[in-house]
Amino acid sequence: MSLEKIAISIGDINGIGIELALKNHHIVKKLANPIYCIDKKLLKKASKKLNIAIPDDFKIYGKYKKCKIKVAVETKSSGRFSYDSFKTAIDLAVKDEVSAIVTLPINKKAWELAGIDYVGHTDMLRDVFKKDAIMMLGCSQMYVALFTEHIPLKDVAKYIKTKRLKKFLSDFFISIDKPNQPIAVLGLNPHAGDNGVLGDEEKYIIKAIEKVNKKYGSKFELVVPDIAFTPHIRSRYKYFCAMYHDQGLAPLKALYFDQSINVSLNLPIKRTSVDHGTAYDLAYKKNNNISNLSYINAIKEAVI
Amino acid sequence: MSLEKIAISIGDINGIGIELALKNHHIVKKLANPIYCIDKKLLKKASKKLNIAIPDDFKIYGKYKKCKIKVAVETKSSGRFSYDSFKTAIDLAVKDEVSAIVTLPINKKAWELAGIDYVGHTDMLRDVFKKDAIMMLGCSQMYVALFTEHIPLKDVAKYIKTKRLKKFLSDFFISIDKPNQPIAVLGLNPHAGDNGVLGDEEKYIIKAIEKVNKKYGSKFELVVPDIAFTPHIRSRYKYFCAMYHDQGLAPLKALYFDQSINVSLNLPIKRTSVDHGTAYDLAYKKNNNISNLSYINAIKEAVI
Repeated sequence: MSLEKIAISIGDINGIGIELALKNHHIVKKLANPIYCIDKKLLKKASKKLNIAIPDDFKIYGKYKKCKIKVAVETKSSGRFSYDSFKTAIDLAVKDEVSAIVTLPINKKAWELAGIDYVGHTDMLRDVFKKDAIMMLGCSQMYVALFTEHIPLKDVAKYIKTKRLKKFLSDFFISIDKPNQPIAVLGLNPHAGDNGVLGDEEKYIIKAIEKVNKKYGSKFELVVPDIAFTPHIRSRYKYFCAMYHDQGLAPLKALYFDQSINVSLNLPIKRTSVDHGTAYDLAYKKNNNISNLSYINAIKEAVI
Repeated sequence: MSLEKIAISIGDINGIGIELALKNHHIVKKLANPIYCIDKKLLKKASKKLNIAIPDDFKIYGKYKKCKIKVAVETKSSGRFSYDSFKTAIDLAVKDEVSAIVTLPINKKAWELAGIDYVGHTDMLRDVFKKDAIMMLGCSQMYVALFTEHIPLKDVAKYIKTKRLKKFLSDFFISIDKPNQPIAVLGLNPHAGDNGVLGDEEKYIIKAIEKVNKKYGSKFELVVPDIAFTPHIRSRYKYFCAMYHDQGLAPLKALYFDQSINVSLNLPIKRTSVDHGTAYDLAYKKNNNISNLSYINAIKEAVI
């Protein structure tokens, strides 16, 4: 059986992306057949700077504008490069030349400097495919899907509407292959509103859950947010739907920081990603002890 | 050295409060000199129902209205009883007959049925002492203080104002004896607003931190909410100030559910509490395996 072909976008070149790719190629190639979206010139420069040799079977792909490495600095050209690398990976997936893409971390500020209008990977995928991509983070112990993502906290409550939630839960359920197990849906308010005393948006959540469960036979259940991740409750679920960014990600990262990955659901292509940033503080430093757990888990999830 | 006298309010009599008190008296009496706020009649009934003998040195105090035990049911009379028990404990502390009070869990609905206007213990303490009591939960590994508590999520952002935060941080710092170590203050928005791109309330938080640090020499630091509780970051702090209920409590309970306690700060009296509810599902059941960790930790904290 031949290994799955995957495209790996290299992320921000002034961060830890290239180092992760070079250092872990010997592991990655046992799991997949990787194509790294970077050009020879830049790869050579990075290899020299990092003092890590380029493996012989390190397959690269794509055309890129000339770009200098400026360690730990957000630059316009690094923003452009990581965008082009990601775009190249998407194109490979769209043309079916790879079965999935794995993304290394970009720098959002660098994208802004390069005049790229997207907040990040998921946002861009949503636009490219005109689909409501769902951002899910986690690891084999638990996954958290986000109903709202990168919006101010004060705007979250406005998004909690039955119709919108119904679509989200339906899309999510289908994307994860309709498991026959309970799935936690977190309330919005403290104590899930305590019967409306501490906020009443739970009524929309409950209505959406009822409708989707009826339609699909799914087992979505409303759970009180602050106890959702206690050992007893979390043992009941593999999947959690959080209403907002920190509600899901703070507990997830408290429990499983190093090993978590980011998966984009509800798209025509498969995309996974590391769950950490560019780590400028560690980039191009000797003995930086960068954990590869999230990267390797992202590769594993991509080839499942 | 004689043990500290403490008052223990018995909580909702239809929940697990009395059982915790009876079963753990032999441990508690080694840590403190407890006075249980309950009357003989009710205690006898509960002892019979639970099939647990009343220890000889189980000191009780207070006058209460007649009340029937209705296992796992919210009743008007149980609401009144737990309120009177708490009030009795407060009075003992005010009269300096005890050095601290420890509270067992009440049922908020029962308080409502009894026509009691408070949302809970902390709320009542705030009113009785006309002081901005601060609710802090945690255990020896970490403590989380809540800037806002039992309010709808949609209202949280409105509370984030420099003046109000300044008072909170100052009161908090003084209450915990001005430690010479960094204290985490969580941002409100995802990525702490990402320089205003995802919400801008962090500007008020930063201003408040600067002012309080300047005035008191404290070391409050703004921390990004979703990474605040990762192993690396949380090893830096003992105290965390969360902007809202679930931001602090979901990660805390994910990490340290059983052993956490609730401490009221910034009051003329000392009050600690268990960090769990009435557990109606376990109340008066055989072999219910109720954990006493939180209760014993609350006693320990009360006598420090």
